[in-house]
Amino acid sequence: MLDALFRPKAVAVIGASSKELSIGNRIIKNLMDFGFKGAVYPINPKADEIRGLKAYPSILECPGEVDVVHMVIPAKFVPQAVEDCGKKGVKHIIINSGGFSETGPEGAAIEKDFLERAKTYGIRIFGPNCQGIINSDPEIRAYCNFTFTMPNPGYISIVALSGGVAEVIHQGFSEMGVGTRIYASNGNACDVTIPEIIQYLGQDSGTRVIVTYVEGLRDPANFMQTVREVAAKKPILAMKAGRTKEGAKAAASHTGGMAKEDMATDLIFKKAGVVDFRDEGELIQAAVAFASQPIPRGNRVGIITNTGGPAVIATDVLVGAGLTLPPLSEKTAAFLKERLYPEASVGNPVDVLATGTAAHYRACMDAMMEDDAFDCVFVNFVTPFFVDNESIAKEIVAVSQQQKKPIVCNLMTDRRQWTDVVRILQEGGVPCFSLPGAAARAMAALVRYHAIRNREPGEVPPFVDVDARTAREVLKKAAGTEGFLASEAVCEILGAYRIPVAPWRVAADAQAAVKAADAIGYPVVVKAEAPSIIHKSDMGGVALDLGDAESVRSAVEGMQRRLQAENLRFFVQKYLPKGLEVILGAKAEEGLGHIVMFGLGGIYVEIMKDVVFNLTPVTTAEAGEMLSGIKGKALLEGVRGQAGVDQKALQDLILRVSKLVSDLPEIEEMDLNPVIAYETGAFVADARIRIK
Amino acid sequence: MLDALFRPKAVAVIGASSKELSIGNRIIKNLMDFGFKGAVYPINPKADEIRGLKAYPSILECPGEVDVVHMVIPAKFVPQAVEDCGKKGVKHIIINSGGFSETGPEGAAIEKDFLERAKTYGIRIFGPNCQGIINSDPEIRAYCNFTFTMPNPGYISIVALSGGVAEVIHQGFSEMGVGTRIYASNGNACDVTIPEIIQYLGQDSGTRVIVTYVEGLRDPANFMQTVREVAAKKPILAMKAGRTKEGAKAAASHTGGMAKEDMATDLIFKKAGVVDFRDEGELIQAAVAFASQPIPRGNRVGIITNTGGPAVIATDVLVGAGLTLPPLSEKTAAFLKERLYPEASVGNPVDVLATGTAAHYRACMDAMMEDDAFDCVFVNFVTPFFVDNESIAKEIVAVSQQQKKPIVCNLMTDRRQWTDVVRILQEGGVPCFSLPGAAARAMAALVRYHAIRNREPGEVPPFVDVDARTAREVLKKAAGTEGFLASEAVCEILGAYRIPVAPWRVAADAQAAVKAADAIGYPVVVKAEAPSIIHKSDMGGVALDLGDAESVRSAVEGMQRRLQAENLRFFVQKYLPKGLEVILGAKAEEGLGHIVMFGLGGIYVEIMKDVVFNLTPVTTAEAGEMLSGIKGKALLEGVRGQAGVDQKALQDLILRVSKLVSDLPEIEEMDLNPVIAYETGAFVADARIRIK
Repeated sequence: MLDALFRPKAVAVIGASSKELSIGNRIIKNLMDFGFKGAVYPINPKADEIRGLKAYPSILECPGEVDVVHMVIPAKFVPQAVEDCGKKGVKHIIINSGGFSETGPEGAAIEKDFLERAKTYGIRIFGPNCQGIINSDPEIRAYCNFTFTMPNPGYISIVALSGGVAEVIHQGFSEMGVGTRIYASNGNACDVTIPEIIQYLGQDSGTRVIVTYVEGLRDPANFMQTVREVAAKKPILAMKAGRTKEGAKAAASHTGGMAKEDMATDLIFKKAGVVDFRDEGELIQAAVAFASQPIPRGNRVGIITNTGGPAVIATDVLVGAGLTLPPLSEKTAAFLKERLYPEASVGNPVDVLATGTAAHYRACMDAMMEDDAFDCVFVNFVTPFFVDNESIAKEIVAVSQQQKKPIVCNLMTDRRQWTDVVRILQEGGVPCFSLPGAAARAMAALVRYHAIRNREPGEVPPFVDVDARTAREVLKKAAGTEGFLASEAVCEILGAYRIPVAPWRVAADAQAAVKAADAIGYPVVVKAEAPSIIHKSDMGGVALDLGDAESVRSAVEGMQRRLQAENLRFFVQKYLPKGLEVILGAKAEEGLGHIVMFGLGGIYVEIMKDVVFNLTPVTTAEAGEMLSGIKGKALLEGVRGQAGVDQKALQDLILRVSKLVSDLPEIEEMDLNPVIAYETGAFVADARIRIK
Repeated sequence: MLDALFRPKAVAVIGASSKELSIGNRIIKNLMDFGFKGAVYPINPKADEIRGLKAYPSILECPGEVDVVHMVIPAKFVPQAVEDCGKKGVKHIIINSGGFSETGPEGAAIEKDFLERAKTYGIRIFGPNCQGIINSDPEIRAYCNFTFTMPNPGYISIVALSGGVAEVIHQGFSEMGVGTRIYASNGNACDVTIPEIIQYLGQDSGTRVIVTYVEGLRDPANFMQTVREVAAKKPILAMKAGRTKEGAKAAASHTGGMAKEDMATDLIFKKAGVVDFRDEGELIQAAVAFASQPIPRGNRVGIITNTGGPAVIATDVLVGAGLTLPPLSEKTAAFLKERLYPEASVGNPVDVLATGTAAHYRACMDAMMEDDAFDCVFVNFVTPFFVDNESIAKEIVAVSQQQKKPIVCNLMTDRRQWTDVVRILQEGGVPCFSLPGAAARAMAALVRYHAIRNREPGEVPPFVDVDARTAREVLKKAAGTEGFLASEAVCEILGAYRIPVAPWRVAADAQAAVKAADAIGYPVVVKAEAPSIIHKSDMGGVALDLGDAESVRSAVEGMQRRLQAENLRFFVQKYLPKGLEVILGAKAEEGLGHIVMFGLGGIYVEIMKDVVFNLTPVTTAEAGEMLSGIKGKALLEGVRGQAGVDQKALQDLILRVSKLVSDLPEIEEMDLNPVIAYETGAFVADARIRIK
């Protein structure tokens, strides 16, 4: 339980210092400046007092219990200090100092050392090499951190390994005049993890929205599980950086990790129900809306404005993000026509005109809150000198505080002149933005979370018809080359999972191949199989569309001449008639499961990169989304009067592939390419499996 | 010449008022508050003085010359007031009042009336229904506007019809502490146009960057020509809204224009060399960078940081926008290793660490300014309490003021605490942003303008081999159905422009058709032609791939039976062998010329929408860009060991289509679909032309 870490009653600082510009001094100053409600114990054997507080020579000599100890001492002294804390009965240590695993093997050894000691005493370590935590709860007011942004109490909590980005986000809220709740930046995170903190924030009733930033995930499976549970109840907004090769390299250089462009994090975000962002500014703005507004029940927005152009921009952004602008109902239109100026534009957007009064704004907001055609309300508000803007602001606050439907406000003003307007809206908790696009994107994020929370969960079918034991046995026996399984092993495994494969046989020579082809029916494909052969087609080991016995014989004899491989056999398979080529694949993702891929085959995958991904276990709903997620989905549905293909069969295939790789985690990579889809059914024409 | 409008020496306000909350009072207040350097004459027959200034009963009684007259009077009084201004010799009138063409025919008539009178006297009208202008030039300080944002003098000028958006942008600069120069929002713009103002700003030496917002273009050809000339010398940053159907509708409702989603504006921006934006925030941030920084000579950026995560975000955004991060040269690396902390990360990004000093920052900036591997420098700067941040700020200012290479700064601080740092950077003209993504996008915009200004202009080939006269004659004679020309007329016109078409003949009956086919060579296509037939293929009027005389005969006879049309003829054409199907098209754009389209044919255009557009006259460089602009360009270049197609021939085709529609503006629409491209050559297989 991290409660004592985030809600400490007494904090000690080992390495407390009298030097103004040192971290050991700053943390004490911050605790005092922020009005910490508990006791602060500077620990310094050489000082009597620091910043007017009595200093103690050792943690052991502190009076009373200590919930959180900061360590601001050289790395080499940390293990002994942890030992002392253990003796004192301390349960949480924030190690601000660096010099551990981020610096190399020597530091890593120290980290391992203190961590073992901490475990002995049941101590949880936050950090090392970290900023620390802040809790702005008026009952706590713990600024256990050496940074400089003093937040007002609020409902947004921030968690990230990266102190730099967490602080930038923190400053973003501060600049907007929006309060925050808990702030946690845990650097190396050798013990207390991000998922653990997110879990804690999920239970913290003062946190309405959780904001996080990642450059990669340490323990993706754990992250996935925790975040999924929390996100179902409370919005989690996240951003991942290190998306480009260069960005990943920059991330590796500052975390000491491996440079890796990963796709899995995005898929985890999606599957876990995280509202993800590509831009930190958008993330900040969205969090501001989540902090005070209810979640909309749909995507239908009403726009109220007192100026034209900004409403056009807002409309573009809202519609571009998938929101709709329903027309006003007759009743609403009639209601507003009675109340607004005759020249006002009564529609959606409704333009009350620059001369529009507080009563006009209120009438519009009331009408849209009442009208079932709207799920949320967007307010554009420029402050002309000739109207009573303070009253308009008060009405917006009043409606926002009803918490009926979410409202965001694009406030277009000079904040130095219209200080009362700004103050009224800010104190009233109205999410205010300075640009129509920013306000619109914040509103769109609320709608996005609604869609996530209400999405069809689907199910992972149990597939009682699969024969996992046979597949496992085939896999165990399969001595492939460079991990690649022989075609027959591949087909046996697919067969065991009832994944439809074109009929096949294995033949030792030309005569057997002809016999096999006769049994299968022409045309057939013949592939050369031998432990030494990997890239069959490059070596002339594949012959397609063989229409008769003579072609088969001549193909096999040709391969025998050309390849001269030991243990050469021939895989004879039905050559499937023309249909729509699609591809399916799976790839193991460390610490997580597999990524399953689906896309259009042939030139579409190569040139148009028209593929979509998901994580195992894929649900029925997710498989359906994958089919409709490709750009060329019209090809699945049928175009130019052609019939579409059997999407049910493709969905089943995706689900069976997901089941197969979930059951057989030793599969590193699997490619079904192509799968030929028909009006009825879909068959694997060629497949590869590589094991670890 | 608009000089007296933007640099007035005396301003009169007809409709000046003593009432505090009236526009006629506010304009006078604004002029006085802003420190206008000239004379202000309130005009009001019922007042002796307004805001302490002597009021005059009529413009005719003003002492001395008046450069600019504001009119803040009901619409119906405007024509007479214009007449009076004419008599007084006034040359510029800003009509702030509304009630003109934006309200309907009655108002439009008044607008026409006063405009005619103005022309008689050589008066230029700014507006009506507009905010007005501001010029912050210390010699002028004209705030001829009723809004409330008082700018500091700067180098950014803003021009837009929409007062709402112009003001939002204006506030954006003000909030960032960045000055602006000229502000012009001309509402209905019945006389002085946006292009005219842009031209003026192009010549204004105090304007370094021009910012504009449009919802549509009144006179696209004029806009194009003016903006192109100006953008070659000075950056023009623009945003267009009304991009969605709903946004276009919202735009129409507030401008009284037609709802229209246009593509032409984007193409004009591109062709004219405008730096275009989809987000007003990005536009504002970019302008801040342009206002003080030189244009980079390339896209190679060096990043300096004192914190890890934000550099990762910046890297992602910069690389995503097409910039590159070259490694440090050995010399630069050695230079920095000597000067930075041993633990600093000497690479690109270079991380000086949170403890990095002003000397460290300076060394990095100097090295990157010196090193030819870099075109621009990105600085991440968080302000830890334990370093001398003011000195770091001063070094950034010093390097920025060298104006060697552009520099932008992501300043991560609490602006209320680090006021000196903020002031030093702001006064030093360093473009500062609060988020790494925002700073990176501003830098990317500088690079984008560099690329625009240095792009290959190409040329519009004269094509002396085309026979425009024949084409014009064919067009004149062509009595098409619903504007569609007969196939033979289409082929004749294409032939006149040396656009290669599959060989063709016209036949009256089956016997003639067979004769034609014999002459052309099999296989052929036969199409039924008659004035009453438009959608040939739907009516069974097209037969493809006819391999012999018998097939031709039977196809023709079948059509004769089925169609029973008057004047039925048969268009016989060579059936082209398989190649890569592409499409080419052109569509007239009102007031502009034509939009030319190129894309992949068949299902690529239908499903993947893989098409690109450009405006006539298309240059050689633009035609080349069109070829490389499609997503499936690899198909043109050749994939899977297949040879590519004749891109030279396709480029030539695009240029000839551009020439053709430019010469024959009565062509409303032209479709060459498909064009079959081969390793050598490309031939039109089917074509349609529709005239007005």
